[in-house]
Amino acid sequence: MEEQIDMVGKAFVDHYYHLFDNDRPSLSSLYQPSSMLTFEGQKIQGVDEIAAKLNQLPFDQCRHVISTIDSQPSSITGGIVVFVSGSLQLLGEEHLLRFSQMFHLIPMLQGNFFVQNDIFRLNYG
Amino acid sequence: MEEQIDMVGKAFVDHYYHLFDNDRPSLSSLYQPSSMLTFEGQKIQGVDEIAAKLNQLPFDQCRHVISTIDSQPSSITGGIVVFVSGSLQLLGEEHLLRFSQMFHLIPMLQGNFFVQNDIFRLNYG
Repeated sequence: MEEQIDMVGKAFVDHYYHLFDNDRPSLSSLYQPSSMLTFEGQKIQGVDEIAAKLNQLPFDQCRHVISTIDSQPSSITGGIVVFVSGSLQLLGEEHLLRFSQMFHLIPMLQGNFFVQNDIFRLNYG
Repeated sequence: MEEQIDMVGKAFVDHYYHLFDNDRPSLSSLYQPSSMLTFEGQKIQGVDEIAAKLNQLPFDQCRHVISTIDSQPSSITGGIVVFVSGSLQLLGEEHLLRFSQMFHLIPMLQGNFFVQNDIFRLNYG
């Protein structure tokens, strides 16, 4: 069970950042109307609002490099909390931005999940 | 509602790190048998196991300084996810350790919460 949670968390993280770096508009498919994103302290709710925020970030091309993924079952049946740390490299910038992000994934039909909670913070040293 | 979530999140965070820095054994009161802690990648479940881990960390006195607190309602009725960033100062060490931590709080009777999910990571620059 524990191993399966880790596999699901890792698969989600791979999928999420692959979409973010290669097809950012498609990230909207991972959210639902109840979903919440807090991005650097700014609170946003709803699929369209979250998609707009992600698509309007002040950089076009970027690459996420993941350092750690920690997953646990949440107390919702089948729910998973995922905690990620990593680096974000923007096109044309050498400096890496360190970040931490958490997701609360809720199961849907057919083995899919949606993101109920998403909190992103850059790590300032 | 949103403001109340933020107030509860902040009150929890203040309480948690106050206990951590001043009466670490009392942290066990915040966990339940179902609680999970992932500490720097190590997974621990249960009140006694989590308390043992926290009490056996390789430092006695420390001080947490909180930089950011982001709180959202989780999809459990009354549940809250809290994402914290901050610094940890160990007694006799000048260097601050940056960390990120998330909690998933589940409501109990009388307005109290317990920690269902707790994930801690040091931020390496």
